[in-house]
Amino acid sequence: MGSLTHEASSDATAQTIPLGLYLWTRIRQQGTQSIMGVPGDMNLELLDYIKSVPELKWIGNTNELNAAYAADGYARTKGCPGAITTTMGVGEMSALNGIAGAYTEQVKVIHVVGTTGTEAQQKRAMIHHCLGSNPDHRVFDNISSHVRCAHAWIDNQHTAAAEIDRVIRECWLKSMPVYIFVPMDFVHIHVPARRLEQSIDLSYPVNLANETQAVQEIVNAVSCAEKPLVLIDGLTSRHAASKQAKELVGLLNLPVFTAPMGKGIIDETLPVWCGIYAGEVSLPGIKQYVEQSDCIINLGPFLSDSNTGGHTRQIFDHQAIMLEPASCTVMGQKFDQVYLRPLLTQLLSAFKKVDIPSVERPVFPSEDPSADAAFPEITQSWIWKRFGQFTRPGDIVIVESGTAQFGFPDAVLPNDIKYITQVYFGSIGYSVGSCLGAALAQFEIQAQGGMPNGRTILIVGDGSLQLTVQEIATMLRHQLSPLLFIISNNGFAIERAIHGPEEEYNNISPWRHQLLLETFGARNGRANSREVKTKKEMEMVLDSRDYTNPREIQLLEVFMATYDYPWRLTKQIGLINARVAAKKK
Amino acid sequence: MGSLTHEASSDATAQTIPLGLYLWTRIRQQGTQSIMGVPGDMNLELLDYIKSVPELKWIGNTNELNAAYAADGYARTKGCPGAITTTMGVGEMSALNGIAGAYTEQVKVIHVVGTTGTEAQQKRAMIHHCLGSNPDHRVFDNISSHVRCAHAWIDNQHTAAAEIDRVIRECWLKSMPVYIFVPMDFVHIHVPARRLEQSIDLSYPVNLANETQAVQEIVNAVSCAEKPLVLIDGLTSRHAASKQAKELVGLLNLPVFTAPMGKGIIDETLPVWCGIYAGEVSLPGIKQYVEQSDCIINLGPFLSDSNTGGHTRQIFDHQAIMLEPASCTVMGQKFDQVYLRPLLTQLLSAFKKVDIPSVERPVFPSEDPSADAAFPEITQSWIWKRFGQFTRPGDIVIVESGTAQFGFPDAVLPNDIKYITQVYFGSIGYSVGSCLGAALAQFEIQAQGGMPNGRTILIVGDGSLQLTVQEIATMLRHQLSPLLFIISNNGFAIERAIHGPEEEYNNISPWRHQLLLETFGARNGRANSREVKTKKEMEMVLDSRDYTNPREIQLLEVFMATYDYPWRLTKQIGLINARVAAKKK
Repeated sequence: MGSLTHEASSDATAQTIPLGLYLWTRIRQQGTQSIMGVPGDMNLELLDYIKSVPELKWIGNTNELNAAYAADGYARTKGCPGAITTTMGVGEMSALNGIAGAYTEQVKVIHVVGTTGTEAQQKRAMIHHCLGSNPDHRVFDNISSHVRCAHAWIDNQHTAAAEIDRVIRECWLKSMPVYIFVPMDFVHIHVPARRLEQSIDLSYPVNLANETQAVQEIVNAVSCAEKPLVLIDGLTSRHAASKQAKELVGLLNLPVFTAPMGKGIIDETLPVWCGIYAGEVSLPGIKQYVEQSDCIINLGPFLSDSNTGGHTRQIFDHQAIMLEPASCTVMGQKFDQVYLRPLLTQLLSAFKKVDIPSVERPVFPSEDPSADAAFPEITQSWIWKRFGQFTRPGDIVIVESGTAQFGFPDAVLPNDIKYITQVYFGSIGYSVGSCLGAALAQFEIQAQGGMPNGRTILIVGDGSLQLTVQEIATMLRHQLSPLLFIISNNGFAIERAIHGPEEEYNNISPWRHQLLLETFGARNGRANSREVKTKKEMEMVLDSRDYTNPREIQLLEVFMATYDYPWRLTKQIGLINARVAAKKK
Repeated sequence: MGSLTHEASSDATAQTIPLGLYLWTRIRQQGTQSIMGVPGDMNLELLDYIKSVPELKWIGNTNELNAAYAADGYARTKGCPGAITTTMGVGEMSALNGIAGAYTEQVKVIHVVGTTGTEAQQKRAMIHHCLGSNPDHRVFDNISSHVRCAHAWIDNQHTAAAEIDRVIRECWLKSMPVYIFVPMDFVHIHVPARRLEQSIDLSYPVNLANETQAVQEIVNAVSCAEKPLVLIDGLTSRHAASKQAKELVGLLNLPVFTAPMGKGIIDETLPVWCGIYAGEVSLPGIKQYVEQSDCIINLGPFLSDSNTGGHTRQIFDHQAIMLEPASCTVMGQKFDQVYLRPLLTQLLSAFKKVDIPSVERPVFPSEDPSADAAFPEITQSWIWKRFGQFTRPGDIVIVESGTAQFGFPDAVLPNDIKYITQVYFGSIGYSVGSCLGAALAQFEIQAQGGMPNGRTILIVGDGSLQLTVQEIATMLRHQLSPLLFIISNNGFAIERAIHGPEEEYNNISPWRHQLLLETFGARNGRANSREVKTKKEMEMVLDSRDYTNPREIQLLEVFMATYDYPWRLTKQIGLINARVAAKKK
């Protein structure tokens, strides 16, 4: 320990405070109130400081992967960073895939890792949780380097506080995960308390000249366009620009489309809202209309296969204004160091001063009723629209990456819905952990008067549920009351649709979902668990008080046919298969 | 696809076979019969070939971390590599911590990752499961580079089969995980079928001169020693030398001690067996006796804190013969390229030709009865010895890394017990996945007439169980009949013992363990679930036919006091705390 200072007290007048207290206080200052994670001997003393920070709460997840998913769902809901703490190696690596999801989907997560002490690191001692017989204790730092935008390994008392502040700033600016490694012997070292009086600088390093020019170019382009439209995508919400996007949509009064990942940002009951655009995986007429536009204002674009109908989006430089998180490109001309939120703010002012072209709302062919429309059973063609009708402002809907993600775009969402799903990363099981985080965040927001009447709604298949099911116990531990919809269709429907519909590997073992709540400790577990097989039965449940005004967690098992798939899934797979077949020729 | 060959048929006379079939056939040839994993779109076509290989079975785990733990437990039980397959990125990283455990504890695991196609990789296409907006699809290869001893990224038809063989050889020789990445467009390419007729060369690259000299030095050292003894450690079984170790013990007739990680290798009812040596965390007299020896034949040493009483082992070069997996050091003189199993074989021959010193069996002070010996409740001082009495030859006992691992060394084990625990890596939750793998392996061994009367026994605490509980469903899916003992003591006892015994973060939420089997689909789940609170109740269950001759999975919830810890845990923590306190002075 040598030169480290442990002596100073931490009362109100103290000049210094322990690092652990500094760290959690800083995190709390970001708006974060829930700390996800699992205790381990290398983070226990860090955990001691959580209770010293007002309104900061230890969650205690059932495992680290779930905790990482929860931190992600929390961040998406609340807008501030989610936080997770684990113990070096074992806990840290168990969380890795959840952090990777946050990285690639651009979600703010702070991962605090409690590590071995500095002396053990220097001696390369064989301490449990290490790798190999002459272990490099910092090897884990290399492993996570691929899934974060910044990190700090605390190893200097004099720079520790500044290092923490630096990575928290990066977390906000890049909207990605950061790591803070705290060796056991640094938990109680003292750092300047005064620093906490000043907020971390979260301002974007905007290039004002570029921004001004970009605004001018955009306004010019829109003003003289013939058929301009707005296309909203997912990075808009990740980079905290949803509010500005809504204002822009209101101001421009142009036709608005949404990419699958951008769902929930814009009120889909607005007259200007025209539908989901995903290349060829769009309703009839939409692809043609969008791609013939001479001016597509594309907010927060994210061009993964899963968000573009399997890369069938055909929008070219000459017709697009691409408003990306840290740059924008106007008809092919790129402006760096121009950031989405401040740019939108400038654009809102600028557009108010000019005439926006008036564009008639397009009319698309009405959908043919599906062949199974009259079936009494619950079908893919019915359920997603019904879920849309079920939602109301303030709701958070967490949708699993598999089949549900391809079905849910058919749900038409009212204003103020948070829609959470991993369109790009697509890690099955994500939704259950994320639901916990979302429910915690919603609870905190509601305690401050936000999201009135909002519910947390999870839609997950029986296959994906298996991966992370125990996080339901954490929902119960914290008396949360999400609505859990489990689509029960005998396994991995999305995999069946892709390949091997009748293969053993797409099956799962049958669970008794009706017992899950009770098993994980629910007080009224049996009463709050239901199953439905017909539309009529499901309607009754959706209309019941437990679902319109939930006061306890509810579980609804929805039985659906094994080989019934959402049309978007079938369509996208068909496109990919046709492409593969064409290449083989 | 260009130059790749897909045309050849795969009938018996074919000159070539598809790569997928080659891969699984090679894995089957190693003795492996169970393939763990989770399906994902990038490994589906690979999975198609599993059913084409006789006696090879798809397991279908509930998540990838559990699958990796299962592959590890399978390998430890059966001696051959465990196998797991996942989909790139999401599945692969979810498994990472389980593979890391196998790496650091030296367990043979083959991880087959189905990746995106070569063209998508080259174009850096934004395919789901990738990282970032200009994704390097091979970034995952870097991430796992720290937890494997070899890998092959299949990208050349002409070398593919040889590459597979090369990494399988490395898996055996180093007894560590290997990765095989199979891009989607390489699954069906054709490789030479003939290659399969020749087994992979698994011979160690022994330096015969070194080996001969080492044997001579060892025999000399033992022959002229005054108080030689044998100390068995865990790498002996990992490197497939348990049989030779047993023979050596029988031949030498010297006092034998076991390190915690080496438990189960030697029959502890033998007259020569003297106890567990873990530095100061040993029963009275053991540390002194061992450390005063002038010749300690240490097989498969593993010097982690958790295996040496927190680094209180004091054995020095001048008194030790260290028989390591790939070298040996005789009284400080090191011989490289000398491998444990072949060396032991040579030693057995050599020792037969010389006189071994006769050493009296040491007598250690008998243990004082513990203060709670007469308590009717189930105590730490009672339960572990009782578990020892419960075991019988052929049993596999999987013990969780936490409290149970510090208690179980008090169990005295008869011959032919497999003892599975992660002494070094210590990842909580490991035991449940591992138990599945062990049970599958045992089933296969018993089908071939091995391990008669053997049972699979899991001992896990309620805290650790949370992390991986759903793997019980996979045990049920495959009609396995392990005995599951759940120590129910309100959370993380090992963390309480270390720090913050009454802190919220060491608590867990209360589950209804009695419902677990039924929830996960057991036929007789309720009947096969029991709970006990007293020694008497537990005795009755242990003596019942369901436990002496289990035909279905059984679950016993064992209630124990929250603040009752095994003496080894208390002792080791006391030592560490004293050391920390001394340094602070």
